Amino acid sequence: MIDPFDDNYFMKQAYQEAEKAFELGEVPVGAVVVANQRVIARAHNLTEQLNDVTAHAEMQAITAAAGFLGGKYLKGCTLYVTLEPCVMCGGALYWSQLDKIVFGARDEKRGASTVGNLYHPKSEVVHGIMESECQAIIQEFFRSKR
Amino acid sequence: MIDPFDDNYFMKQAYQEAEKAFELGEVPVGAVVVANQRVIARAHNLTEQLNDVTAHAEMQAITAAAGFLGGKYLKGCTLYVTLEPCVMCGGALYWSQLDKIVFGARDEKRGASTVGNLYHPKSEVVHGIMESECQAIIQEFFRSKR
Repeated sequence: MIDPFDDNYFMKQAYQEAEKAFELGEVPVGAVVVANQRVIARAHNLTEQLNDVTAHAEMQAITAAAGFLGGKYLKGCTLYVTLEPCVMCGGALYWSQLDKIVFGARDEKRGASTVGNLYHPKSEVVHGIMESECQAIIQEFFRSKR
Repeated sequence: MIDPFDDNYFMKQAYQEAEKAFELGEVPVGAVVVANQRVIARAHNLTEQLNDVTAHAEMQAITAAAGFLGGKYLKGCTLYVTLEPCVMCGGALYWSQLDKIVFGARDEKRGASTVGNLYHPKSEVVHGIMESECQAIIQEFFRSKR
């Protein structure tokens, strides 16, 4: 049976968040947190608007999801993010203990994988979902800034 | 000439923040951000109170300092923190581009140095200031929790 609520479905939700960031002049990265096939948190990069280097999509999604659940650990949840998490976000995802982390495009330069496997050993990691779209929106953003 | 506003002076301010965390039942870690020999932000761990794994002392201090300065980069600033930053905080400190990072006790298990040098190449890093006090308060905390 086809599952309409698969990784592509939820990555598309994260991608829509990235589009909102793009419109605001923010590096277009979006994230959602999913529990029991429901989106419980959505966020996009806001480092410029908030004047805060810690305001990455993942950080805000983690905080919002924990607020929704009323507990700081995100066991049983999946985080979808359009770009590979950076070291800061990788470290935050470790603390969150998510069941699963799904990202779209790789970040060859600042991605967490450039320093090792930072995620919690219990977190399954999947990448490459909507990879070309997630990469294209970033490239388009930096092209428009030149 | 003796400088009364040396690393020990400001680490003591960070330590007082750690003491506040201890009283709240939080893992006792405190931080301050200093610019031109003035404390512009102070924070302590609040992960339990805020139900948020990202609410480490350093993260809050970075956000508060950027808010005070009105710019997201902390060039010209020094961060004092009682315990070695974790990977998440190390990654955040990279983005912040501080002039200097000073920490007290090492965190052998989860410290940023366990995965490499995560800080910005322009950040000077000093450790071991008030090391025994910063370590003792953490040990006392975990002893009291047993």
